[in-house]
Amino acid sequence: MPNNKISDLGNNKNGDIMKHEVDLSDYNIRTDLTIEAIEKDATIAPSTKTYDQVRVTEIDVDEEKSKIIGKKIGKYVTIEFDDVTDKNNKDKVLKIFIKELEKFIKLDNKNDLVLVIGLGNDTSTPDSLGPLAIDGINVTNHLYELSLVDENYQRVAAITPSVMGKTGIETSTIIKSIADATKPKLIIVIDSLASTSVERLNRTIQITNSGIFPGSGIGNRRKEISLETLNIPVIAIGIPTVVDAITIVSDTINYMIKHYIYTKEHLHLPKYKLVIGNNYLKEDIKINNQDKELLLGLVGHLSDYELRSLLNDVLSPIGYNLIVTPTEIDYLIDSLASIICQGINEIMQH
Amino acid sequence: MPNNKISDLGNNKNGDIMKHEVDLSDYNIRTDLTIEAIEKDATIAPSTKTYDQVRVTEIDVDEEKSKIIGKKIGKYVTIEFDDVTDKNNKDKVLKIFIKELEKFIKLDNKNDLVLVIGLGNDTSTPDSLGPLAIDGINVTNHLYELSLVDENYQRVAAITPSVMGKTGIETSTIIKSIADATKPKLIIVIDSLASTSVERLNRTIQITNSGIFPGSGIGNRRKEISLETLNIPVIAIGIPTVVDAITIVSDTINYMIKHYIYTKEHLHLPKYKLVIGNNYLKEDIKINNQDKELLLGLVGHLSDYELRSLLNDVLSPIGYNLIVTPTEIDYLIDSLASIICQGINEIMQH
Amino acid sequence: MPNNKISDLGNNKNGDIMKHEVDLSDYNIRTDLTIEAIEKDATIAPSTKTYDQVRVTEIDVDEEKSKIIGKKIGKYVTIEFDDVTDKNNKDKVLKIFIKELEKFIKLDNKNDLVLVIGLGNDTSTPDSLGPLAIDGINVTNHLYELSLVDENYQRVAAITPSVMGKTGIETSTIIKSIADATKPKLIIVIDSLASTSVERLNRTIQITNSGIFPGSGIGNRRKEISLETLNIPVIAIGIPTVVDAITIVSDTINYMIKHYIYTKEHLHLPKYKLVIGNNYLKEDIKINNQDKELLLGLVGHLSDYELRSLLNDVLSPIGYNLIVTPTEIDYLIDSLASIICQGINEIMQH
Amino acid sequence: MPNNKISDLGNNKNGDIMKHEVDLSDYNIRTDLTIEAIEKDATIAPSTKTYDQVRVTEIDVDEEKSKIIGKKIGKYVTIEFDDVTDKNNKDKVLKIFIKELEKFIKLDNKNDLVLVIGLGNDTSTPDSLGPLAIDGINVTNHLYELSLVDENYQRVAAITPSVMGKTGIETSTIIKSIADATKPKLIIVIDSLASTSVERLNRTIQITNSGIFPGSGIGNRRKEISLETLNIPVIAIGIPTVVDAITIVSDTINYMIKHYIYTKEHLHLPKYKLVIGNNYLKEDIKINNQDKELLLGLVGHLSDYELRSLLNDVLSPIGYNLIVTPTEIDYLIDSLASIICQGINEIMQH
Repeated sequence: MPNNKISDLGNNKNGDIMKHEVDLSDYNIRTDLTIEAIEKDATIAPSTKTYDQVRVTEIDVDEEKSKIIGKKIGKYVTIEFDDVTDKNNKDKVLKIFIKELEKFIKLDNKNDLVLVIGLGNDTSTPDSLGPLAIDGINVTNHLYELSLVDENYQRVAAITPSVMGKTGIETSTIIKSIADATKPKLIIVIDSLASTSVERLNRTIQITNSGIFPGSGIGNRRKEISLETLNIPVIAIGIPTVVDAITIVSDTINYMIKHYIYTKEHLHLPKYKLVIGNNYLKEDIKINNQDKELLLGLVGHLSDYELRSLLNDVLSPIGYNLIVTPTEIDYLIDSLASIICQGINEIMQH
Repeated sequence: MPNNKISDLGNNKNGDIMKHEVDLSDYNIRTDLTIEAIEKDATIAPSTKTYDQVRVTEIDVDEEKSKIIGKKIGKYVTIEFDDVTDKNNKDKVLKIFIKELEKFIKLDNKNDLVLVIGLGNDTSTPDSLGPLAIDGINVTNHLYELSLVDENYQRVAAITPSVMGKTGIETSTIIKSIADATKPKLIIVIDSLASTSVERLNRTIQITNSGIFPGSGIGNRRKEISLETLNIPVIAIGIPTVVDAITIVSDTINYMIKHYIYTKEHLHLPKYKLVIGNNYLKEDIKINNQDKELLLGLVGHLSDYELRSLLNDVLSPIGYNLIVTPTEIDYLIDSLASIICQGINEIMQH
Repeated sequence: MPNNKISDLGNNKNGDIMKHEVDLSDYNIRTDLTIEAIEKDATIAPSTKTYDQVRVTEIDVDEEKSKIIGKKIGKYVTIEFDDVTDKNNKDKVLKIFIKELEKFIKLDNKNDLVLVIGLGNDTSTPDSLGPLAIDGINVTNHLYELSLVDENYQRVAAITPSVMGKTGIETSTIIKSIADATKPKLIIVIDSLASTSVERLNRTIQITNSGIFPGSGIGNRRKEISLETLNIPVIAIGIPTVVDAITIVSDTINYMIKHYIYTKEHLHLPKYKLVIGNNYLKEDIKINNQDKELLLGLVGHLSDYELRSLLNDVLSPIGYNLIVTPTEIDYLIDSLASIICQGINEIMQH
Repeated sequence: MPNNKISDLGNNKNGDIMKHEVDLSDYNIRTDLTIEAIEKDATIAPSTKTYDQVRVTEIDVDEEKSKIIGKKIGKYVTIEFDDVTDKNNKDKVLKIFIKELEKFIKLDNKNDLVLVIGLGNDTSTPDSLGPLAIDGINVTNHLYELSLVDENYQRVAAITPSVMGKTGIETSTIIKSIADATKPKLIIVIDSLASTSVERLNRTIQITNSGIFPGSGIGNRRKEISLETLNIPVIAIGIPTVVDAITIVSDTINYMIKHYIYTKEHLHLPKYKLVIGNNYLKEDIKINNQDKELLLGLVGHLSDYELRSLLNDVLSPIGYNLIVTPTEIDYLIDSLASIICQGINEIMQH
């Protein structure tokens, strides 16, 4: 359990006492996914169901859990899937996304305005999910006044407030202004997120009723957009598209340990040279501290959380903790955006 | 002088009386350029200067003229130039644009906020001038609070409110909301315009202090953005990127007449076949009504304005009065947008 | 029937003899659609079927017809449809496109290489159909050597040779080089076309086995790509995305005549003012020469073909015969390209 | 010095003998930069000059060095710089790029054809450098036959052969075909590269006369394009835009060691807490094996090369060795491409 201090780094056999205390409250783990945040705490048991290889996890964060994992109170649904460049797979994910999103939406009247907001920066590929999705949203608000809409279609408006670096204005200020003028009954926000897991990049949709901090994935956190700040229910839909260097390094160090233990155990087998491959991840390898420390010295003493904090200390001051994105993002982002806008359109028209 | 009625069309030698009255107040000549609107009225004499093949025309529209030409009271400066794909030419236009725009801008204090607004639709090439220009504007508003700005740089914010067809919200509502929240001392609006002259397409910049109607060029006129509606001075910068079919047809009919008269006059010359080319436009051909009517029958009886009104009657009901754009727009729009944003950036930082 | 001369323009009641002869072989009617070329000749009767509002016309051009209409010998299938932004409509068109394209394709063996070529310029929206379609083609040629392909999938390669203005190389030279090196058994070429009818813009697919001239729609005709020049069967698929100003003017002049006659006939009816609208196009109006000449003078004497030739004389020398595209092209081009690539992919994998 | 075997990993105090031999010839260090490859061998001393903060390094790889560093025989010039979003900086880099590129180009005659080739994939941002640069190349080959070119301008053609995954054809096959047909006297190839250093990403231009392997940076190496394979001199210009996860991890592990040693040495100083920041990289820290092993256990025993090999063993089998790109690439790629095409254009026209 994190105590917001890293201690004992350097307390070693040589008797040196290297008391290096880092205030972890300064360290912002770069995940916007609650499913990743709860991995820190075994007492939170999410409920997971799998539909045809798509995993849906529901987490209810109450006040107590909120303090532990540092995520806001609310309901979080995470949809995890594989490749969406395959049309069948995409249709499957779309169907589940619609089913899950629908549970979040409560509207009394087709005339109630839903304001859909695409956060992010259309000129940066991994940050363009929101603006791309908005391009596909069917808007009807302006047609309502002219009675030009099929009565089955919800009243919908959509905006892309861009990012503070391009507007010079706090994104939350823009949203609040337009919400005040248009008086929506529900706000749906779409944004790119940051993950602490490469496996989840471009393969996860998070839906939550707890609101969102624009730019929390990429760049600095901005002012919150939520029921509390706007007095309007806010549903946030996000897909992780970036990781930071800390994630890549700490993932790899964990793989190294498993690889080392697996290798040591299988070294005597004749077929060893053939079988190493990715087997070390398939078998359930029991990590023991002795091996961990042998392989990695003091670094092997650290918990996952301490390792990430140390990496933050090392990388952040030299500007190396770069935010990165797999190069395949260019092929995936359109497909991901279309799942979101098609899903929203579908729900709005029945 | 237009009297808002076309009469006598059809009053012909055969004695038929075809009284066809069209209410011209319904007919919206598709020009956003005041320099074109005044061509209807000889009593308005603009002042024109030419700098190195770039023509700058200044028109002051007072209350009286406003009624005649149907343009708002204010000052209009039009910069006409040739190709801007040539770097030298572009630099020349940029310099003159800066000089002219500067005359419109009065700011007391570097701390006064200037809000730059890029109207239009980033997914439609001829309508993307505003959003493209905004991409290049240096914004500083958010840095001002952190004292991170060189004191020579004006406080600047920038937004792209998109179009009503994509947001479902009146563009003027979005702008008013954000202006209320950010309290700018000056608003600069950038938009694509419609022209009634093919020659001016992508070769004209209009600057005015009279405000603008979003979407007046393409699609329907929306609510005005101006000092009157916002209580903040508004400078509008526009470049015509589209014409309608009426313009193309009425231009051509006028060329046909000149071509016919020229041809008739030169037919007896031995070198006739060699010289026709574009000579008919170079010589100052006197158009006489007899030839006009001979060539074009009843259509030859119509004034320019009546011809456009007739074309509107013919084309609009069948949805043919298409808005078109020359195919070279794809190569020009970036260059035009960069003149505007570079010009604004330059003025804002000294 | 065109005799390649316009005469008698100007032979009028006043006794003037204005013998203006234009050599029509110089005049290139800007249509790449054979369905438009045959409209000049009543002796060619195309066979047309309509499936659920999609019209399919088949024209076989033999040697004799080829001379008359100036199109190459071969089979031409034209699919005409409405809007493809509607998903149902798009699916309908896709199905018919697949059915018709399949009739053109004869391959003995899945191992026979099909080379798909996307002509045009990816940086000019109306000319980007070919490159956009190629982006969606599933290529398998490189996988064949590694036996990585499902045996149902045809061997396919795809290239985008760009345009001569960007490469400095004749497009046909690039294609011939690559065809020589890869030895395809069939070539499928995709290109944007020019139309002489605004109604057909973005609403027509032409399929032919007669080959294609790159850039015949936009810009100058380049060297032919066909069975004759490459010794490989060539199927060309094209969609008209541009018209020239001549088309817009001559269309409009024809509408004016119909509008005039309709107006004259209905003027005495009390409900006249209400009913004019687009009725003049719905009724089958008989155009009589007397009315035509009354309305349009000498211009009313011209046949369609003569009118276009005159317009060419007037507009071309002054560079006004601009190539234009409706502004909605930005929304349609992706959808049109996806019909073509999906259609080809479908045929190649069964 | 790498001996193409990693041994002794696991030979530890516990007496276990873990003889893990990996054939390094299979391990492809993902660098396309010769300046990085020579860092493995102290006997190769490059010559470096610095002009106004831009570093230019020249390396001549002869037969002997070629074997050691695994790079082809030839001359390699590397230009290293900072940010090119700043206009002044960009102009400075452009000037030096022109000066260095010029030294590689020997042409007898303005009529000699130069074929410029933009490798890579225009739909993947980090791989789009080549196609983007080609968009800006002034081509003249087609004008030469018409004598339409100013005699100062070199005969230039330009192609973008795309990538095998999109064409189904070996890129070298396409290039050879077109080279055979157009007979250039010089080929200039532009491509995105992979780096093993995050610092060099988007901040380095490499020019070489040794040819290039398409796709060596991203994806698999394809057949070589060089003087040897084409019988035409080939100049390759590349900019690193991607790194792999191995690079990020091995960089970080090295930083961790320096950080640890620095921390240990300064821990007793009162100002310690204030000064840590990035100081650990500024001071010339002497890495001793004892500290290295204390911090990192067995991993601390490995040389840089051995560490990368181990990481390759761990990450490649599980598909984790992702290729990544900093998110700022979207802002930099246009600027980098324009330096290359402007530089080439400049040299070609005098």
